[in-house]
Amino acid sequence: MRVLGVDCGGVFTGYGIVEADSAGKLLCIDCGAIKLVARDPLPLRLSRIYRELESLIREHGPDEVAIEEVFYALNVKSALTLGQVRGVAMLAAAVAGLPVAEYSPLTIKSSVVGYGRAEKRQVQHMVTRLLQLERVPEPLDASDALAIAICHLHSATTLERQGVAPLK
Amino acid sequence: MRVLGVDCGGVFTGYGIVEADSAGKLLCIDCGAIKLVARDPLPLRLSRIYRELESLIREHGPDEVAIEEVFYALNVKSALTLGQVRGVAMLAAAVAGLPVAEYSPLTIKSSVVGYGRAEKRQVQHMVTRLLQLERVPEPLDASDALAIAICHLHSATTLERQGVAPLK
Repeated sequence: MRVLGVDCGGVFTGYGIVEADSAGKLLCIDCGAIKLVARDPLPLRLSRIYRELESLIREHGPDEVAIEEVFYALNVKSALTLGQVRGVAMLAAAVAGLPVAEYSPLTIKSSVVGYGRAEKRQVQHMVTRLLQLERVPEPLDASDALAIAICHLHSATTLERQGVAPLK
Repeated sequence: MRVLGVDCGGVFTGYGIVEADSAGKLLCIDCGAIKLVARDPLPLRLSRIYRELESLIREHGPDEVAIEEVFYALNVKSALTLGQVRGVAMLAAAVAGLPVAEYSPLTIKSSVVGYGRAEKRQVQHMVTRLLQLERVPEPLDASDALAIAICHLHSATTLERQGVAPLK
């Protein structure tokens, strides 16, 4: 099973595609970040994210999409910006007919690092180990997106659907 | 010139299509509201709005899109929800290659009612008069969307581009 993890942000939107084989072994297919140019008009920035995700979905054919759940934001302005990006990311998945799962930051960190309040660098370190990467995935948005995808592949529901025993 | 006004909301997203002829006379082409079912998963709700706007754009061929600018919201949660809907609405315009203009609630009310702190019912009343409608446009989201379209058609930039003298 192949999962596209998306880490939405106002400037960088990270993406990470991870595949789990039937034994639960994880493989990084692709990762990176879509960078938005702040001076571009908002509709252009949003369509940029949409088209990039659309093209990643077409290229790598993920089975499902996982995205970070957001309950809080610094303020109303940043919540609006983040909401706009999230809306477009979810739409890209929905239009491609892919199910979307949402996980809280706490669940993602617990699943990847084993500790819900882990720092971003610890997440990056564990993602590098779990995917046996030669280099640390950069920028942080890319490793966060990989962590979201791993969290979804680790989730009990996902494992159960695949008939795999839960990972330790 | 034909303008699609969109009034984004978590439950109802209003739309209103208004045409201005070369003399500046306004005509209502269509209006209504897209209602979301709260129990539907978010990606489904967002793709519903996207597809409905896509189909309105295809059917009525507006030249431009106008949308309400949002600076504040009740709280971070509602800002996130609103942002998601706005992102998808802007994307529908951008994908269709239409320019998007944003106006603050104050500008919209001033433009339509002549008073920036007007009540929703006053906006509805003036929209009915300006468009010479036989009935009040319902729900309120539809009349708000018509007001946004009228505001864009009234704006100095729009009038100038069309070579029409500013409306009094």
